[in-house]
Amino acid sequence: MEFEEQIKQLKEYLDAEDINQFRDHFLELHVYEQSQVYLSLSDDERLRGYNFLSPKEMADMFEILEEEEESVEKYLEEMNPQYAADMLSEMYRDNAVDMLNQLDPATIKKYLSLMPAEDADGIRRLLKYEDDTAGSIMTTEYISIFANQTIKSAMSILKRKAPEAETIYYVYVVDSNRRLVGVISLRDLIVHEDDEMIFDIMGDRLVSVNVNDDQRDVARTIQDYDFLAIPVVDNEERLIGIITVDDIIDVINDEAASDYSGLAGVDVEEKSENPFVVASKRLPWLIILLFLGIGTSTLISNFEEMISEASILAVFISLITGTAGNAGTQSLAVAVRKLADSDENKRNFGKLILSEISSGLITGVVTGVTIFLAVGIWQQNFVLGLVIGIAMLAAITIANLAGSFIPILMEKIGFDPAVASGPFITTLTDLTSVLIYFNIAALFMDYLT
Amino acid sequence: MEFEEQIKQLKEYLDAEDINQFRDHFLELHVYEQSQVYLSLSDDERLRGYNFLSPKEMADMFEILEEEEESVEKYLEEMNPQYAADMLSEMYRDNAVDMLNQLDPATIKKYLSLMPAEDADGIRRLLKYEDDTAGSIMTTEYISIFANQTIKSAMSILKRKAPEAETIYYVYVVDSNRRLVGVISLRDLIVHEDDEMIFDIMGDRLVSVNVNDDQRDVARTIQDYDFLAIPVVDNEERLIGIITVDDIIDVINDEAASDYSGLAGVDVEEKSENPFVVASKRLPWLIILLFLGIGTSTLISNFEEMISEASILAVFISLITGTAGNAGTQSLAVAVRKLADSDENKRNFGKLILSEISSGLITGVVTGVTIFLAVGIWQQNFVLGLVIGIAMLAAITIANLAGSFIPILMEKIGFDPAVASGPFITTLTDLTSVLIYFNIAALFMDYLT
Repeated sequence: MEFEEQIKQLKEYLDAEDINQFRDHFLELHVYEQSQVYLSLSDDERLRGYNFLSPKEMADMFEILEEEEESVEKYLEEMNPQYAADMLSEMYRDNAVDMLNQLDPATIKKYLSLMPAEDADGIRRLLKYEDDTAGSIMTTEYISIFANQTIKSAMSILKRKAPEAETIYYVYVVDSNRRLVGVISLRDLIVHEDDEMIFDIMGDRLVSVNVNDDQRDVARTIQDYDFLAIPVVDNEERLIGIITVDDIIDVINDEAASDYSGLAGVDVEEKSENPFVVASKRLPWLIILLFLGIGTSTLISNFEEMISEASILAVFISLITGTAGNAGTQSLAVAVRKLADSDENKRNFGKLILSEISSGLITGVVTGVTIFLAVGIWQQNFVLGLVIGIAMLAAITIANLAGSFIPILMEKIGFDPAVASGPFITTLTDLTSVLIYFNIAALFMDYLT
Repeated sequence: MEFEEQIKQLKEYLDAEDINQFRDHFLELHVYEQSQVYLSLSDDERLRGYNFLSPKEMADMFEILEEEEESVEKYLEEMNPQYAADMLSEMYRDNAVDMLNQLDPATIKKYLSLMPAEDADGIRRLLKYEDDTAGSIMTTEYISIFANQTIKSAMSILKRKAPEAETIYYVYVVDSNRRLVGVISLRDLIVHEDDEMIFDIMGDRLVSVNVNDDQRDVARTIQDYDFLAIPVVDNEERLIGIITVDDIIDVINDEAASDYSGLAGVDVEEKSENPFVVASKRLPWLIILLFLGIGTSTLISNFEEMISEASILAVFISLITGTAGNAGTQSLAVAVRKLADSDENKRNFGKLILSEISSGLITGVVTGVTIFLAVGIWQQNFVLGLVIGIAMLAAITIANLAGSFIPILMEKIGFDPAVASGPFITTLTDLTSVLIYFNIAALFMDYLT
């Protein structure tokens, strides 16, 4: 049966209040498919669903739903508060925390007060970590053992804890102070004999992240090492959580979207379809840049007399600003990416800027000579060609410098370089290009009129 | 000891040809760390390393190195060909295939001829899949069992195959025709009793991908379902491979980098530090766009007479082209992202374009009114303000249309919409903006001179 038909069928069971049929068919779906069903239900149908499914069953599905941020509040609100609290406490803590983070403090408090104290405490501890740190994406549902256990006893702990642990594929070895001393994969546990000791087979080259590390760095480490999960320690090297690869994929996607958004000067994740909402999100950038653009216009207006003497100059304004803007955008994108990719200690800002200036000069010379010939032949005026060519060379070099220098500057003063947008760079290079162009043209005015 | 010191120490062992010390210290590193050591070696040291490590040990490290594409050819070349072939056949097949894909056909053939026939055949089969398909990133080293086995017998297969399987965390259940009939996780195997039957506990809601599916779709499925691996089937639903989450992370990163590169009109993954190489990669786009820009200049030159009569018009060219370009870039980025994010059947091109036109009109009206007031007050000329305002409104609306229509058009005619670049859109909107601006100005010329 097609999935669309299955959804239709499930809705019919719901509408007919046929709890048994609904449960039989709904619960055999994968939780992701369950979430797709849930998202397609009407308000009434969802309300009925809460009566048909236990908080635990709803929790399994909500692990997946966590990303539909804008609706989470509505869903929780329409549930009986005790049911919602039970569901939240059945979820993996990292996901429960992600959901609670969408709510206002009073509502969070309400749900926490309805939960078993242990769960509420655990969640409260996770809620306090700052956004985008390892702590904010970790879960506390890991499995830990001691080094002086046999594999057999480790396996029995593992079997017992498997239902609630977020991953059982890595088991972490701690000492009596909860300090992380080793790690062992389920693969290793399985291929070794029952009576071997953990300390003989555990890996003791520990790779862990600090709870305050940036989530981007955590993502890079997991990718470098091809881990399925990584342990999180506090400043005393005590194990306090783990981060699993599925959450890292979310981080990678979010960071990619935010880099992309930054370059375009717009939040590309915009979900609204209301054109007024869309416009209201895009306008701030546009208006700011508009006023920067008025700066460029003011600059040009200083050269108005030159233009009325040699109107041909106006013909090439957009060509020079446009080409410099394109070069600056390329330079910006490369610089932002290099800043994001390399480790702190591999970064060499001077070298990056120097490299952009050099490649700017080379592209500038090639582009300048091309336009010198093109304009010279087209306008039968090689002096004009020379003016445009030299202006182009200078404007491109400056644009490359700006494209690399601005993200570096932002990084230095503590901003995310990825928010340096392409539109900002092009608008800024409009200004520098115009300045360069008219000053060079001024030198040759005798030959241009 | 710091990692930097460890590297120095290991190099000393290599230089002193102290094979035992080198092996002891090198092999206790994580393979990722081994790869960092390897990448820091001189040519001579690497050659010595090949004598100190077995092909299998080198293979474990090369699983991680796979991404350093540009150097792979050099590394293989400097090895003894038989050693290189042995190493390649010890690697997971998907990674060996990734590496071989960097080489020319004759070299591939040479290495395959030096491998055991079984490995060579397996690799040959994988090499024939097209880039960016599921087949090109899958591996054939998975574990499969039959449904009428007990858990105990399944576990013994798993223990035996664990050393060479790429993942043991999912076991796939096939029938006698190798058709995929179920899947079971190691977690399930562990929590159930030894004498239970596989068919009683296996999941029979199968989520698999076809070998010819686009790798982007595979990545989306793995993310949706939070899988660690997904089975790959051929057109007859026979199991032929699996794709693991670490390879999916590489796909996500590559796709994000290519989207980002597309938007900027430059390959942001450029590795070269030679400014001539860098420039030569950026120039093609710049020169193409330069000639499109000359088109805009030609257009302006048709209005040269107007400009010499009213040189104030030249002052606002860059403001209008710049703002329209910014709006077009925003629109482009949103459209590209929406096209990439949504499933084939959820796409509604008409709606997307309509939404961009509507939000273009709204942003255009707001920006237009703003600039009408600003210019009117600044130049004490509200007719001029009106010309600029109307031109801005029209230019932004057209830019939004172009920004959404062009990626959709590219998708329709079978191109990746992500290569529609910001620079291309801004250069194109320069042309439309200028056309709009001067035609509107022409209507009001009596009031502008």
